[in-house]
Amino acid sequence: MITRLSTLFLRTLREDPADAEVPSHRLLVRAGYVRRAAPGIYTWLPLGLKVLRNVETVVREEMDAIGAQEVHFPALLPREPYEATGRWTEYGDNLFRLKDRKGGDYLLGPTHEEMFTLLVKDITSSYKGLPISLYQIQTKYRDEARPRAGILRGREFVMKDSYSFDIDEAGLQASYDRHRAAYVRIFDRLGLKYVIVSAMSGAMGGSASEEFLADSEVGEDTYVRSPGGYAANVEAVQTPAPPARPIDGLPAAHVEDTPDTPTIATLVAVANERYPREPAFTGADTLKNVLVVLRHPDGTREPLAVGLPGDREVDLKRLEAQVAPAEVEPFGDEDFARHPLLVKGYIGPGVLGEAAASGIRYLLDPRVVPGTVWITGADVRGRHVFDLVAGRDFTGDGTLDVAEIVEGDPSPDGSGPLTLARGIEMGHIFQLGRKYADALGCQVLDANGKLVTVTMGSYGIGVSRAVAAIAENSHDDRGLIWPREIAPADVHLVIAGKGPEIAGAAEDLAEALDAVGVRVMLDDRNASPGVKFADAELIGVPTVVVVGRGVSTGVIELRDRATGEKTELALAEAAGQIVTVVRTGHLRPDGA
Amino acid sequence: MITRLSTLFLRTLREDPADAEVPSHRLLVRAGYVRRAAPGIYTWLPLGLKVLRNVETVVREEMDAIGAQEVHFPALLPREPYEATGRWTEYGDNLFRLKDRKGGDYLLGPTHEEMFTLLVKDITSSYKGLPISLYQIQTKYRDEARPRAGILRGREFVMKDSYSFDIDEAGLQASYDRHRAAYVRIFDRLGLKYVIVSAMSGAMGGSASEEFLADSEVGEDTYVRSPGGYAANVEAVQTPAPPARPIDGLPAAHVEDTPDTPTIATLVAVANERYPREPAFTGADTLKNVLVVLRHPDGTREPLAVGLPGDREVDLKRLEAQVAPAEVEPFGDEDFARHPLLVKGYIGPGVLGEAAASGIRYLLDPRVVPGTVWITGADVRGRHVFDLVAGRDFTGDGTLDVAEIVEGDPSPDGSGPLTLARGIEMGHIFQLGRKYADALGCQVLDANGKLVTVTMGSYGIGVSRAVAAIAENSHDDRGLIWPREIAPADVHLVIAGKGPEIAGAAEDLAEALDAVGVRVMLDDRNASPGVKFADAELIGVPTVVVVGRGVSTGVIELRDRATGEKTELALAEAAGQIVTVVRTGHLRPDGA
Repeated sequence: MITRLSTLFLRTLREDPADAEVPSHRLLVRAGYVRRAAPGIYTWLPLGLKVLRNVETVVREEMDAIGAQEVHFPALLPREPYEATGRWTEYGDNLFRLKDRKGGDYLLGPTHEEMFTLLVKDITSSYKGLPISLYQIQTKYRDEARPRAGILRGREFVMKDSYSFDIDEAGLQASYDRHRAAYVRIFDRLGLKYVIVSAMSGAMGGSASEEFLADSEVGEDTYVRSPGGYAANVEAVQTPAPPARPIDGLPAAHVEDTPDTPTIATLVAVANERYPREPAFTGADTLKNVLVVLRHPDGTREPLAVGLPGDREVDLKRLEAQVAPAEVEPFGDEDFARHPLLVKGYIGPGVLGEAAASGIRYLLDPRVVPGTVWITGADVRGRHVFDLVAGRDFTGDGTLDVAEIVEGDPSPDGSGPLTLARGIEMGHIFQLGRKYADALGCQVLDANGKLVTVTMGSYGIGVSRAVAAIAENSHDDRGLIWPREIAPADVHLVIAGKGPEIAGAAEDLAEALDAVGVRVMLDDRNASPGVKFADAELIGVPTVVVVGRGVSTGVIELRDRATGEKTELALAEAAGQIVTVVRTGHLRPDGA
Repeated sequence: MITRLSTLFLRTLREDPADAEVPSHRLLVRAGYVRRAAPGIYTWLPLGLKVLRNVETVVREEMDAIGAQEVHFPALLPREPYEATGRWTEYGDNLFRLKDRKGGDYLLGPTHEEMFTLLVKDITSSYKGLPISLYQIQTKYRDEARPRAGILRGREFVMKDSYSFDIDEAGLQASYDRHRAAYVRIFDRLGLKYVIVSAMSGAMGGSASEEFLADSEVGEDTYVRSPGGYAANVEAVQTPAPPARPIDGLPAAHVEDTPDTPTIATLVAVANERYPREPAFTGADTLKNVLVVLRHPDGTREPLAVGLPGDREVDLKRLEAQVAPAEVEPFGDEDFARHPLLVKGYIGPGVLGEAAASGIRYLLDPRVVPGTVWITGADVRGRHVFDLVAGRDFTGDGTLDVAEIVEGDPSPDGSGPLTLARGIEMGHIFQLGRKYADALGCQVLDANGKLVTVTMGSYGIGVSRAVAAIAENSHDDRGLIWPREIAPADVHLVIAGKGPEIAGAAEDLAEALDAVGVRVMLDDRNASPGVKFADAELIGVPTVVVVGRGVSTGVIELRDRATGEKTELALAEAAGQIVTVVRTGHLRPDGA
């Protein structure tokens, strides 16, 4: 069916929407693909829905190709299964909760591990029914604290989630590998530039876990790469711990007056003045003790101290990933008031630790190994302690690897310095193991007739987010540039001139293309060529065909939206040539 | 792709689920199409999802064919638009309401009039953009007091809702007619036996309104038909009012002791004993005054008295439709206590009416016209009043047509007696007019440059409900019988015997059919032919092919699921013949 712009429910905007911070958001709204209905909640207009469905089709085809079977769960879910796994509470404020007319507790599903586990428990009784992979393409809900960037991070969104069920670890690994391969094919077909990185599994539990990140400066995830091929979400990077050093012979710790040292830099300057050495002291020789409060899902607040080299900040996202499902809150003035031993700006290991005077749990950066020597607070205003030796003068309650990663840090694989980049999380695959099956009693009979708990994998793709990510990956100043498989049409045919001859030629061409399955958008509006060209560039169909005055001499124009290349075509041969472009990407089948 | 039962995520049940009251629910659960997740909330298993998608495709094709454009709204909606139209309150307990993390009010959309109206207001500024029809196929939510019959009346369900926007009444009528014609094609393609009836518009407002009801004894709607072709939902039937009669010369009313007349029948017996006449008194000569309480959406309670002939009951659904959005509650003992003038069992018009002693609004059945003579309560225990004349001795505050309709009642079109039947509401179309556009300010410039308010139509189809309705319409004791376009497959191919020859022949046949686009379900399980045949009948694919021992002599069997007819086919010609059956419904293209 030809999509006619004269009747299409479309209004393009020349101005950027006021609330749009990123290109995909600006362009998807301006080009009439989506409209905001509420914060983080969007309506799909006709063009946007076509693109969304095209993404869904790619995902569905590749999931079907690995033998995954499609089902469809409700979005409105009862509390009980999520209570059984603890997630009713763990999700905190991110979960939309509601009551029905009888007072029963319900939630809007943020992800469906529990429901799939219960369904397999219900349907599958024997190892003969395994392995099985089930998936759905479904609307999900998360009450994000900061919905942003249009459909990039919404509160109602479309996700493909799938789950594999196996009898043993080897089966889980095979299911995981099949999904990983399918994801590679999906993101290739979506035309995304992406990287696969190691990931924390976060609140989901489980062990092996990878993310598919689309390269993008507006992405919320930071990832690292090493020269040797290591790639990981910054949340998952494990800082290499140096070897412990000998303690014997190190000088004794000594407390000194250090007036006017409110910052690490001023403290380092004092150290270099009093104890000149080569190489000189740097922030990395100081030990900074940062206090935060963990708010646990049950509402309790726990203070936590993190000791790390003074040249590093705590990376809040790394910290949040490590302490999930607890949330991180600042250690405020009231908290200091509650702990008078903590001298703000001069906190040292002396008062920290579960067994120490404050009783506050104290976790150390992996670099703080026994034998390392530190300058740190002396728990007295205006005083610091020098030559404080880890393992001799202080120990922590454990290790916490949450210092920021910076460009040039050594890679965990030892292959050289890390580089950093940003990405949009498009997919996440992980080996859940038996966490959910244990909690919900999903067992099958094995070959010996013994009940065994199944082991699971969980695999997600942000389907609506993919639309935004593709738009981020592929646009220019003038508008969107869709990959053909995702585009709302194959050909955007512009009637650029008045009179029945031009309109007739365009209509005939549109009919000829439509008849052979080419998806045609026909700009038959009563508008100037300039308006039509601007809209064509904004909307971003990959092939633009201009039918104008050239018709009188039998010529029309083909434009490639991505490259801007323009080619004149003889009207008589145009239909066939356009079909070739649509099917092969080139004017001639040989690609010349 | 061939669907193999050996790996299909399917478990058929021999026993009916305990909570299933109607055939479609029993069979859809037993055959592995749906599973209950919570009361009125269901999960679609692979077979069920295929059927649901097939219904969606039919609906989508016919909506596209009338030029309606598909969009997709969120299900999670902000309160404000629903507040502006009053529906935030009017929906009462049927609306799922929730708060987000910031305390903002949201709802789960039960229907989207407000959102579509606001979208058109946003996108369309001129009459040149009209008429336009928009639709979505989307998950909707209603917190039904009594979810029942599986997916027939659920709390989360899939609906197609569309809305037309026109500049004037003639345009609205044309849009309505287009939708009506599309609905006829849709329900024809779904293979449903249905009737189109006049309907109340209920809580939706508006005027012209029709329902598409699928014939079914388990339906919740009752409809009437007349010999002359009148058809209406019983809620919408208007009782013909008889002409008023002369009052002059009628005897005066007189109160009498009527001990031992607790029922209409005993009262009638007394009347016939004391005042013998031909024809004798019947219940229709008595006036029964029924009290109820209306609970308005704002929570206020209003007592209401309905006066109707004593041989009729109040039809609660007719009453609810008439007083919506108010809900109907019983007039309880506390209510009687609050109104001491009302003598239970002997309530007469004497104390009723807004201007009367009780102050209770009093509405009369259309048959209670001036000049009609009644026996009714005298507002004193054990006493009734005789020869009470409407229009002379009492009047009501208005008319309320809520008495039950019974088989044989005169038809409003005067063509003879009404017949009654039950149906499932599958579709509802109505002319909303300007109610929503007025409330939300949806205006466009007309041809004279003047702002005018658009007029709307609203059109719904229960998509998930259609799956159940088709199952109700088409099943037998052994299982489901799907119309081909809706069925999860075209051919259910049963391997009914052991050995490589039989399996090989079946696999080859499946491949040959799959290659030409026939949707094949292959029962390649290691199970007995009896189990496989039972499952084939339960699942209900229209064409069953049995490949068994006959293979050794080159013969297989074709079974028609609906008729049970069995035909032997030569294996060598089977593929072609089965394709013919799938495409034409007959073994030979000429239908012989």
